[in-house]
Parts: sequence; C-alpha cells; structure tokens
Amino acid sequence: MEDYGRFLALLVSALLVGFMSVIFALVWVFHYRGGLSWDGGAGEFNWHPVLLVTGFVFIQGIAIIVYRLPWTWKCSKLLMKFIHAGLNTIAMILAIVSMVAAFEFHNASNIPNMYSLHSWIGLTAVILYSLQLLLGFAVFLLPFAPVPLRAALMPIHVYSGLLIFATVIASCLMGITEKLLFSLQNPAYSASPPEAIFVNCLGLLIVIFGALILWMASRPHWKRPPEEIPKVPRPNGGTLEGTEAESTMTDCSNADKSDVGFNSEAARKRNLKLDEAGQRSTM
Amino acid sequence: MEDYGRFLALLVSALLVGFMSVIFALVWVFHYRGGLSWDGGAGEFNWHPVLLVTGFVFIQGIAIIVYRLPWTWKCSKLLMKFIHAGLNTIAMILAIVSMVAAFEFHNASNIPNMYSLHSWIGLTAVILYSLQLLLGFAVFLLPFAPVPLRAALMPIHVYSGLLIFATVIASCLMGITEKLLFSLQNPAYSASPPEAIFVNCLGLLIVIFGALILWMASRPHWKRPPEEIPKVPRPNGGTLEGTEAESTMTDCSNADKSDVGFNSEAARKRNLKLDEAGQRSTM
Repeated sequence: MEDYGRFLALLVSALLVGFMSVIFALVWVFHYRGGLSWDGGAGEFNWHPVLLVTGFVFIQGIAIIVYRLPWTWKCSKLLMKFIHAGLNTIAMILAIVSMVAAFEFHNASNIPNMYSLHSWIGLTAVILYSLQLLLGFAVFLLPFAPVPLRAALMPIHVYSGLLIFATVIASCLMGITEKLLFSLQNPAYSASPPEAIFVNCLGLLIVIFGALILWMASRPHWKRPPEEIPKVPRPNGGTLEGTEAESTMTDCSNADKSDVGFNSEAARKRNLKLDEAGQRSTM
Repeated sequence: MEDYGRFLALLVSALLVGFMSVIFALVWVFHYRGGLSWDGGAGEFNWHPVLLVTGFVFIQGIAIIVYRLPWTWKCSKLLMKFIHAGLNTIAMILAIVSMVAAFEFHNASNIPNMYSLHSWIGLTAVILYSLQLLLGFAVFLLPFAPVPLRAALMPIHVYSGLLIFATVIASCLMGITEKLLFSLQNPAYSASPPEAIFVNCLGLLIVIFGALILWMASRPHWKRPPEEIPKVPRPNGGTLEGTEAESTMTDCSNADKSDVGFNSEAARKRNLKLDEAGQRSTM
C-alpha cells in the first residue's frame, strides 16, 4: 500500500477520536444527565445520544473504511462484504433503538414528536440508511444482480453512503444543540457551564472523526486492489472480468494461495481503469 | 461531455434549489422576523441567515462546480481560477459580514457570544475557509509555487473545500435549530407553527442543494479536461507537462484556437493518469 504509514496514522487517529466520542457521550449521560434506564424517563432518552454516537457515527464510520484496511486485502471480497453489511446492520439497529428511546421519552412526557429540523433530517437519514442497506444487500451481496446493474449502482451506493454518514453527523450536531438548550436551564447554555463546554467538545470530536473517515474513504490510492480472477462465464451471460468479483476464498487463512497481483502495479492500473467505468467502489 | 443531459438536469436542479433557499431565507426574515436593518436589533441579526444562505451556501456551491461547466472548458484555466477565487472571495466577505451582524446583535442585547456548538463550528468554518482561500491564491493562482507543491496540495485543497462546504451546511442547520427554539415562543417550535414548518423546509432545501453540488463535484467523468500544452521549460526547472498548466488564453473568445484535444479520448485518459498522481483537482 502506498503511504502505509500515513494510512495507519490516520486510522489510529480516527479510532482514537471515535472511541473518545463514545466515552464523551457516556460521560455526558452518566455524569451530567443521571445515567441510563428504560422507563420512559430522562434515562431512557439518554440512550438516544449514546446509541447514535456509538452505532450511527462510530460503527458506521468503521463500516465505511473496512475495505481499505490493507491487512484485509488477503481475505475474500465476499467475507469483507459480509463484514461491511454486518457492521452497517448493527449501526442501523442501534439507530432504530435510539429513535424508539427518544419517541418513548417524548410520549411519556407529552412532548410532540417530529417537529424539529433535527427530527426531520435524522429520520430521513435512518430511512435512507435502511434503504441503502437493503439495496446494497440485494445488489452487491446476493449473487443475482447482473454485472451492468452492479456497475451502474456502485458509484451511487458509495456516494449515498458518504452523504448519509455526513448527514448523520449534521443531525447529531443539531441534536446536541437542541438537548443543551433544553436541559441547561440554571445555569443556561449561554452561561457556558462545564456540561456545555464538554458536550460542545463531543460535537467537535464527531466532526473530526467524520473528517478523518471521509478523507480515508476518498483517497483512490488506498482502495482495495481488485482480485486476480480469470474470465469465467456467469449464468447471466456476462463475465466476471471488469468488475469486482467475489473470490472463492471464504476466509483469510487460505488467502496466500491466491494473492497474486495484490498490490501490484497491474492491479493498481486495473483499479483506475475500473474507476473510469464507474465500476468499482471507492471503498 | 459524457452524460451532458444528466449534468445539465442536475445543474438546473441545483440552481433552482439554491435560488429557492435564498428566497426562503428572505421570506423568513421579511415575512416572519420583521425584515432587515443595521441598528443592533433583531433586524441586524436577520442579515446573518440571509447572507449565510446566499454567500456561504449558494455562492460557495457555485464556486465549487464552476470548473465543471462544459461551456467554460474553452476559456483559459487562469480565467476560471479567477472566477473560482472571486466567487469564494464574495462568499467569504458575506460570511464575515453575517458574523458581524450576529455579534453586534448579541452585544446590543447582552447575549453572550461563542458559547454554542453552532458558533464554535461556524467560526471554525469561516477561519478555515479564509485560510483555504489564501492558500489557494498563493499556491494555485500566483505563478510562484513549484509544480510538485501544487501537485501535493491539490487533493488537500479539493478535500478541504468539500469538507468546509459540508461543515457550513451543518452549521446552518444548527443555526436554524437555535433560532427557531429561541424565537418561537407562543406558539413554540414544538407546536409546529407555519414559521417552524417553513424554516424546516429551508433546512431541507440547503441539504438537497449540498447533496447536488457534492454529487456534481465528485463525478470524475465531469471534470474539466486538461489542456493540450507541449512541454515547456519553467523557471524552477520543471516542465508544464503532467500538471494543469495555465493556457496563454485570457478569455473565452480566442479559445477555439487551442481547444485541440478537449473532450478527446486522449485527454480523458491523461485526466485519469493525472488523478492517479494526485495532480489534478476533482473540480
């Protein structure tokens, strides 16, 4: 991998900032907001920021860059697709549970639902994320979609993924703004009490995490190289050449048998050729 | 240009949504918030959303995609750089004036400054945007920077530009959330009065505008093709081949003399080759 050291430094930074975001969310709800519960009270609402930062920000961020980890390039593409889809499924479940927590808290406290821009954009992000996951599963994981369809949808899948990730972060920032304005009364948010400063820093951490993930996900030379697969006929009449084909490997243990061409100049050039046709993910 | 019809449809959509955002911001402040003034009162604050949506969102968005307009590909690159820098300068000035309006309103009303996450992220975005503009001017517009420095900084310039644009949009959404929570009291934001629905729609329009601009700016096949310039020696010892060189054209009128290779297969391949080395903007 080109610039391996730089990639590693960025990855460690992203993991560190991501972990810190989760820790900050936990400290916020436990130290300042009375902890977690599931009884319709403030403790149930507190699951909302904790699960969103953990699942919808941190785990989604890792899911986005999982193909780029160079030590996974010896694993089969199919296995990596399962890991990508699995992480995104966990993130989706946590996001849905976090929404249920917010709705139940609102209902128990007679607070209206879905009036704020935060709720509009947040719910839209969850719906689009779920559709993205379903479509990704149907087109890229199941073996039925024809190659031209995969090729046509891949750039849209990649762009939507990054856009939804950025939208989720924007939605978190709006949520933090709302929550601090509501819950800080004496002293108010405008008096900058320690909780306000602390949670503002959580917001900054989330933005930095997002910026690191988006940088790593958008560098073309850090893409997973395509696998060396000979032309083989497919049931739909196409061939596997010219698109990302699943290897017959199912785990990383036997990868050494077929890692010919990984990281090679030929693989890198083919990578760019496929980009040209919009047939490869930037992941 | 490949997919010219699709590009045009997206451009018209972006312009429409961008114009609607500006109109919505104006209707918000004139119909619901008492209009504009410069006297330290609410009317002065109202410049804040109007100038931000107009300058920091709409004009910045156009500045981002200005290189991609195919009818400008016959203009010299230098002219396009001036237009890109000029639009960004206008956006920066409007953003700074909008901040002054907010600060003066706060000071006149004894409201603390810089306590909210919106203000932290918004001010950071303005500072980074100004630095980006200065650095872009020094490196890409002035003729002094050596070719390797330009090549090394171009991917960072492009990424920073898109990241700052997305951050500005996130900051706008936080600002809308704050303003609606502060100003809607009877009925409150949670009662969804017409102003709340209307301004939430402004937030959605800004997000859609951002999504359209980011899609158009990140499609590799919609890049401005590199110009056909022969190898010529440079004062610093390098040659102009292999990076984007300013043409000797200074306007669009004499462009037909040297548009050989525009849109050609060779130009497209060289485009990809330069991408590989990180030497071309995605703009």
